[in-house]
Amino acid sequence: MRIFANANIRIFRFYTIDIQMKRGFGSDNHSGISPEVIEAIAKANSEHALAYGDDEYTKRLEELFKETFGEQARVYLVFNGTGANVLCIDAMCRSHEAVVCAETAHINVDECGAPQRVVGCRLLTVDTPDGKLTPDLVKTRLHGFGFEHHSQPKAISISQPTELGTLYTLDEIKALADLAHSYNMYLHVDGARLANAAVALGCTFKEMTTDLGVDALSFGGTKNGLLMGESCVLLNPTLDVDMKYRRKQMTQLCSKMRFMAAQFICYLESGIWRRNAEHSNRMAQLLHSQLLTLNSQLKVMYPVQVNSVFVQLPTEVWHRLQERYFFYDWDEANDVVRWMCSFDTTEEDIHAFVYALKEELSR
Amino acid sequence: MRIFANANIRIFRFYTIDIQMKRGFGSDNHSGISPEVIEAIAKANSEHALAYGDDEYTKRLEELFKETFGEQARVYLVFNGTGANVLCIDAMCRSHEAVVCAETAHINVDECGAPQRVVGCRLLTVDTPDGKLTPDLVKTRLHGFGFEHHSQPKAISISQPTELGTLYTLDEIKALADLAHSYNMYLHVDGARLANAAVALGCTFKEMTTDLGVDALSFGGTKNGLLMGESCVLLNPTLDVDMKYRRKQMTQLCSKMRFMAAQFICYLESGIWRRNAEHSNRMAQLLHSQLLTLNSQLKVMYPVQVNSVFVQLPTEVWHRLQERYFFYDWDEANDVVRWMCSFDTTEEDIHAFVYALKEELSR
Amino acid sequence: MRIFANANIRIFRFYTIDIQMKRGFGSDNHSGISPEVIEAIAKANSEHALAYGDDEYTKRLEELFKETFGEQARVYLVFNGTGANVLCIDAMCRSHEAVVCAETAHINVDECGAPQRVVGCRLLTVDTPDGKLTPDLVKTRLHGFGFEHHSQPKAISISQPTELGTLYTLDEIKALADLAHSYNMYLHVDGARLANAAVALGCTFKEMTTDLGVDALSFGGTKNGLLMGESCVLLNPTLDVDMKYRRKQMTQLCSKMRFMAAQFICYLESGIWRRNAEHSNRMAQLLHSQLLTLNSQLKVMYPVQVNSVFVQLPTEVWHRLQERYFFYDWDEANDVVRWMCSFDTTEEDIHAFVYALKEELSR
Amino acid sequence: MRIFANANIRIFRFYTIDIQMKRGFGSDNHSGISPEVIEAIAKANSEHALAYGDDEYTKRLEELFKETFGEQARVYLVFNGTGANVLCIDAMCRSHEAVVCAETAHINVDECGAPQRVVGCRLLTVDTPDGKLTPDLVKTRLHGFGFEHHSQPKAISISQPTELGTLYTLDEIKALADLAHSYNMYLHVDGARLANAAVALGCTFKEMTTDLGVDALSFGGTKNGLLMGESCVLLNPTLDVDMKYRRKQMTQLCSKMRFMAAQFICYLESGIWRRNAEHSNRMAQLLHSQLLTLNSQLKVMYPVQVNSVFVQLPTEVWHRLQERYFFYDWDEANDVVRWMCSFDTTEEDIHAFVYALKEELSR
Repeated sequence: MRIFANANIRIFRFYTIDIQMKRGFGSDNHSGISPEVIEAIAKANSEHALAYGDDEYTKRLEELFKETFGEQARVYLVFNGTGANVLCIDAMCRSHEAVVCAETAHINVDECGAPQRVVGCRLLTVDTPDGKLTPDLVKTRLHGFGFEHHSQPKAISISQPTELGTLYTLDEIKALADLAHSYNMYLHVDGARLANAAVALGCTFKEMTTDLGVDALSFGGTKNGLLMGESCVLLNPTLDVDMKYRRKQMTQLCSKMRFMAAQFICYLESGIWRRNAEHSNRMAQLLHSQLLTLNSQLKVMYPVQVNSVFVQLPTEVWHRLQERYFFYDWDEANDVVRWMCSFDTTEEDIHAFVYALKEELSR
Repeated sequence: MRIFANANIRIFRFYTIDIQMKRGFGSDNHSGISPEVIEAIAKANSEHALAYGDDEYTKRLEELFKETFGEQARVYLVFNGTGANVLCIDAMCRSHEAVVCAETAHINVDECGAPQRVVGCRLLTVDTPDGKLTPDLVKTRLHGFGFEHHSQPKAISISQPTELGTLYTLDEIKALADLAHSYNMYLHVDGARLANAAVALGCTFKEMTTDLGVDALSFGGTKNGLLMGESCVLLNPTLDVDMKYRRKQMTQLCSKMRFMAAQFICYLESGIWRRNAEHSNRMAQLLHSQLLTLNSQLKVMYPVQVNSVFVQLPTEVWHRLQERYFFYDWDEANDVVRWMCSFDTTEEDIHAFVYALKEELSR
Repeated sequence: MRIFANANIRIFRFYTIDIQMKRGFGSDNHSGISPEVIEAIAKANSEHALAYGDDEYTKRLEELFKETFGEQARVYLVFNGTGANVLCIDAMCRSHEAVVCAETAHINVDECGAPQRVVGCRLLTVDTPDGKLTPDLVKTRLHGFGFEHHSQPKAISISQPTELGTLYTLDEIKALADLAHSYNMYLHVDGARLANAAVALGCTFKEMTTDLGVDALSFGGTKNGLLMGESCVLLNPTLDVDMKYRRKQMTQLCSKMRFMAAQFICYLESGIWRRNAEHSNRMAQLLHSQLLTLNSQLKVMYPVQVNSVFVQLPTEVWHRLQERYFFYDWDEANDVVRWMCSFDTTEEDIHAFVYALKEELSR
Repeated sequence: MRIFANANIRIFRFYTIDIQMKRGFGSDNHSGISPEVIEAIAKANSEHALAYGDDEYTKRLEELFKETFGEQARVYLVFNGTGANVLCIDAMCRSHEAVVCAETAHINVDECGAPQRVVGCRLLTVDTPDGKLTPDLVKTRLHGFGFEHHSQPKAISISQPTELGTLYTLDEIKALADLAHSYNMYLHVDGARLANAAVALGCTFKEMTTDLGVDALSFGGTKNGLLMGESCVLLNPTLDVDMKYRRKQMTQLCSKMRFMAAQFICYLESGIWRRNAEHSNRMAQLLHSQLLTLNSQLKVMYPVQVNSVFVQLPTEVWHRLQERYFFYDWDEANDVVRWMCSFDTTEEDIHAFVYALKEELSR
């Protein structure tokens, strides 16, 4: 039982991890908090504030999201990315409806079935070469409308950037939004790393979402320097029905919300969203360029467009390297691993990592 | 929006269907009830009986299922096939676990997301050439064990016969059962048409399930001559936990259960399960042989092993034929339709149908 | 652990029940099928019919329900009463909303939490002296509107007749409908025994529901002579949204629906609904009058308005009587038992039962 | 429609709240973060750490909870109190089972039906004079064991302190734990304010839970000085099954968990849990004593044992006072309001508040 064995090995690696946690390349969730964000939290920590979002910080945040995404934007702060995605799906679909997404989508593979348990709906998955849906790929799942035995396709969900570090162009997003609307469906964007996409495409958040017809957005900050801050942003106001109850009932209502709002206000007003994303993207480019200088034992799998690099290399090499650095074996079957840069990754970190890789390659 | 339009046409065809409902080839659900079954219901209609399965008929049925599937068999009668499948899944999996099944599986495509809504779990689907899973195909979904972000694979579900009218050999089922157990998983069989499989393979129900290590079985009678009778049969007694509550809570507990039990007793004791299945299988063979005498405009898609024939033929031909006979466009995109024979299909029905088909082909 | 012990005893009594099942007074679910209904099923058993309700019988049924409940009536046949109630609740409420009902309501105590599992909503229960809600009782649960921490009251559900055999007058139902609508809520009626209520009140089904503003109705036939037939009837057309998918996904879609439709057509057209209900009500009156001739050791708990009689009598007496007749201990703590008459109960049955009771009382 | 109107008024008051948010008495959720906690977060903000709880802080936390609650304690950090309660219920019950709790329990009235939606189970509520369950009160809901139509009672849930600010003695908790176990049930404690209870009773957390047989505990920190930190603590190790998947699937897994762990470590090690709780309790005593000096127009409803005071006073008085201070109308129907003290409430705050109250009383 090769896979099972490996799975065990992987679990083993998880729970006995004792390598020094230098700044590594395991995930942008492994980095900490931008100093400005901690300051913002400290500043918000004076006197009392109403709980559950009835405070002045959250009111300011709601204004700020309208300035950022357009007047019709409605924001609901939540605790994590899974909460944001599930709340967006809950706004778009009832349990007998379905969401079309890539097989590799976070909502499909990395949320332990949260959409199924909390919303009760189906996900209609499509295999993709690079994590990106296209109108033709989506159309393969658009049938059985009106047939009561089939879950009714009601939303298309894409990740920008994708879980494979690839990007949709604005035209590609527009095409999917138009397709969705022509079927009376909605387009959802999982934007856990939307900042990395915005700086890579050189556009505003609004140009990448509202202006293209995106209906619902999961907008994240945690992976880009916040302590904790994710959000469900409804860009199609007709979706904004009973949302406050839905959020509460799915256990995603924060009591001292001022401190989550204060983080996002800092994130958007101070521009650290841009600074941090530009940096992690640039570090990924540096890592990529360094890898290209190495011998041909490794293969970069996808275009490096944001802050992650997917590499295929010999099993024994990445196994040895994992004894020195923590990172995920993305696709064991094909010896593909994922290396991610963070807002706090330094050039030294990359040179040290590439040096270690070189050593393992040359063993 | 070609697909949408077609979908509308199909709905239209549904709800304005006015062709005389002669015995057709739309579904074995379109046939009626075997006379012996109505007699059995009438016979059971004397005096009072305890409700909800505490009656003598259900007790006799439970014995009969033990005689049929082995001493460890535990049967829970339910109303329909979806109820049987969902109750079996509920016995095997909790919401954070997953069922590996073929993309074409009834639980995946024809239950409007009932497993997701009622159990809350994920289905891990696999594309297959003929509706049949193999150990290698299943293994592609067996990873992430112990990783909390991934739904944990806990069951394999196969349909015998498959939704495409193909059959698993006993060895093939055994191999899947062994694979499942080697991963501490369960094997479920959707046996809505298990009788057709048993007569085709010339084996007993027990030889096709219990003896091979099948853990849970959806055993159906409705499609083969009952008024209404499906069942969740647990062959692995460790799964028999709190089942009566689970069945009740998912709205599948029948009050006057004696009348469902009486149908199944008649079905198994009188042998009509065999007679009906043998007949519908033979009629499908006759239909198949007649089709082979026709010109090459049509193509039989899969081996004809039970009571269904899948045929690819020109769009305009099957559209015209649908004005004379009701049947489903199984795969519009590829012009594949499904023709099913029932326990009451006659040779005359087949000759009349093939004659009509000939006419439309020669237009 | 007195209660637990008693509970065990009760279970014991269930599963070792071996008293001759003469026509007893345990439940109207213990009676069989009216002969006309079996005939109707047999008559419908000719040729083929489309499955899942696209047949001529179901179309005729839909017309018949419009004739019975008014033009706006929309009927969805389901398998059992729990299915009907849950589908009605699903039509009225989303998971963050709530249904106000009596503590004794079937949806609250006798469905093993089906509304909670399938719809995910709350039930706001009210203690009542006789199983009947009043506007004042309901108002005690109508608060917290707009407050996201509280489930939002969205429907009132009453049972007509109640689970205690009591009846709402038309004025009382009207008052609850008006109250519901004044709060932008809906009124649901659990009419598993609606026929018994109609004959007792001497009104039509429509006068008791549609004309009073009832929005959704669970209309049953199984307890009054059908083999199996329940229905979700939407009298408020704005509730008729996506119902066919909701029914299918909650496992309540019947394949050979013509046979369920045929039963209901017979039930309504032949008038057996009236004949059977009148008879079982009359038998309950006879039983009541006979009980009044007995000594004062027993007490009739509620007005006898339909086909059930609730009696309080010494523990040892009803325990001994349960060795001769099966019936439920309705309220062990207070020694209250329930005796129900059915459409097939005879005067002889009652005299024999009362004689046995007399014997046990005089021991 | 008085209630509806009032509800609207209340909503209005919510969303137009513009009184200066001086330190008030609306909720202990309105206070901020203890300075030490922000320091602890800042200290933890160095280098990288594994996400999702595989970091050194969480490992230290797990040790600390074992030191605090006993070796068998297993802790799962979650985002909020509703998440902690729902995860605890999920560990104890399946959907066909039920939790006995007080009508006033937070899980019943203040979580918008989260247990029903996420776990799918029933809550069996009991009316209480003071928010406290007793064995006799609980026993009124313990029946129907083995009866498939009834949800099976599987857990008792109490809040310590209760939502009415009252406390269970250790003996009272022990009695409920013994009762639960004698029925093969579990005892859950909602300890959102457990620190306030511990200091009031002068006992350790372990003496109030593990030592008495408590099986599962929701242990909170947010209301007592943390930015955000709640936890599901399993004291009965047999409940610790698949919890990491259950937490993830219900959207309660935190990515940068080190920062939540660091808060709790600070909370427990520095003793601020005690300092803060002692202070807010003492402030409530001061408030209470001051109220007693006022005229008899107001009535203190329950013994003041922790940090809340419930007072009944004339409608117009508390309405006018709400224009100067934000607080909840706890029970509009009976003119009862709730005033809560926080870890940062000062004696000046109380004197200013009582002065304002005096003014309104004397108008």
